[in-house]
Amino acid sequence: MEPPVIVLVRPQLGENIGKTARAMLNFGLTDLRLVAPRDGWPNPAAGPAASGADVVLSQAQVFDSVAEAVHDCPNVFATTVRKRGLVIPVETPEQAARSIRAASGRSAILFGAERSGLETEEVALAGTIITVPINPEFRSLNLAQAVILIAYEWSKGSDLAVPTLGDEAEPRAPHVHLEGLIGQLDEALDAAGYYYPEDRTPATKNTIRTILTKAGWSTREIQALRGMIRTITHPRQRGRKPPEG
Amino acid sequence: MEPPVIVLVRPQLGENIGKTARAMLNFGLTDLRLVAPRDGWPNPAAGPAASGADVVLSQAQVFDSVAEAVHDCPNVFATTVRKRGLVIPVETPEQAARSIRAASGRSAILFGAERSGLETEEVALAGTIITVPINPEFRSLNLAQAVILIAYEWSKGSDLAVPTLGDEAEPRAPHVHLEGLIGQLDEALDAAGYYYPEDRTPATKNTIRTILTKAGWSTREIQALRGMIRTITHPRQRGRKPPEG
Repeated sequence: MEPPVIVLVRPQLGENIGKTARAMLNFGLTDLRLVAPRDGWPNPAAGPAASGADVVLSQAQVFDSVAEAVHDCPNVFATTVRKRGLVIPVETPEQAARSIRAASGRSAILFGAERSGLETEEVALAGTIITVPINPEFRSLNLAQAVILIAYEWSKGSDLAVPTLGDEAEPRAPHVHLEGLIGQLDEALDAAGYYYPEDRTPATKNTIRTILTKAGWSTREIQALRGMIRTITHPRQRGRKPPEG
Repeated sequence: MEPPVIVLVRPQLGENIGKTARAMLNFGLTDLRLVAPRDGWPNPAAGPAASGADVVLSQAQVFDSVAEAVHDCPNVFATTVRKRGLVIPVETPEQAARSIRAASGRSAILFGAERSGLETEEVALAGTIITVPINPEFRSLNLAQAVILIAYEWSKGSDLAVPTLGDEAEPRAPHVHLEGLIGQLDEALDAAGYYYPEDRTPATKNTIRTILTKAGWSTREIQALRGMIRTITHPRQRGRKPPEG
């Protein structure tokens, strides 16, 4: 699965090129291409803003036109909020990421200049438009933010998207352990005169059982709770070492 | 469907608070809470960085502690990459967004300070950890970028009608109720000499917090548990009617 190429079209500030590199590398993208950067290339403001993503900047290629920049990419996506009369399918970042992963050959994603965005002719080079669904009353995504959302969505299908999905989470205790806890608490409550009045006792016991069952504790957690109940009902003598076991 | 609260814990730069507000409003989030911002609040550097998201800044609330900041939020998520021995489930932003949409009651998402992140005790306040799957060789998400990814994921479901998950189930208690239970148990354990040896006490307290947070109890259930602890620590005298109240 080939990672997509990020193409910045007529970017203005070197700082934003650096931030884009940083956003890309966080999600495993390294192929950055610049079309006619306003202040030339390399740009001394890019490095500090990249926060260590220098490998992306040093490999960045510069082109005169969008067509040249995407010459080796069969699949071109244009990020824009305006359709401008073009009959091109529009996808969300999520849908586009799926399209990119499913596509054969390299994909390129075009991002326009900071204020003006992409020209209509540039959007027309693309087979698909990507539009980020956004608060209609506050549309203020900057360049690096748009890049990071797309890179993030793409990364979901890549190798780094393997979080430690609670596989370390402890399994729920066998039921008999839970019964032990309930029995111990029941004894402590009974000894303390908790069950009063008597005719409410069965309902109260059901409530206690529901509360403790709901928690879904592990054996280790149940043991910890049993230790707490034991200590509260049989306080340790201050200043003395607690008994063994 | 209630949008989540964004909680910045000990944020350092006003600029980053402003950028966070901008990231939030792009995806329809407006409830920003600050815990002990380093340079106080308001901070003159925040406004310019917010690029017009002033409504988020002007409504921002300031708190002394994380517990106070999440007092009305039954569901607390902590963004961190380290698990630090806590047994708390880990979710991706996508999974967490789904959890937030399905949850009853308000959700809060904690983000740590720029360099240091969240303290272990702060993570222990959460029922769920959110970790953004990221390039293991280049982990360099800044604060506003982490916020925008979470806000973006949440916004995906914001227009959709999501069925209320088990509307017969009692809603999770506001966080302040859980704190009350933890505090009461802590007192009882301390009085009984449970915290031994002393150097294990912080870890033990984190474990207790995790065990009780995990349960997801309602206010009624927490009240029942508090009544049990009260009775065990102050047993009723046999044969006498318990005191009123």
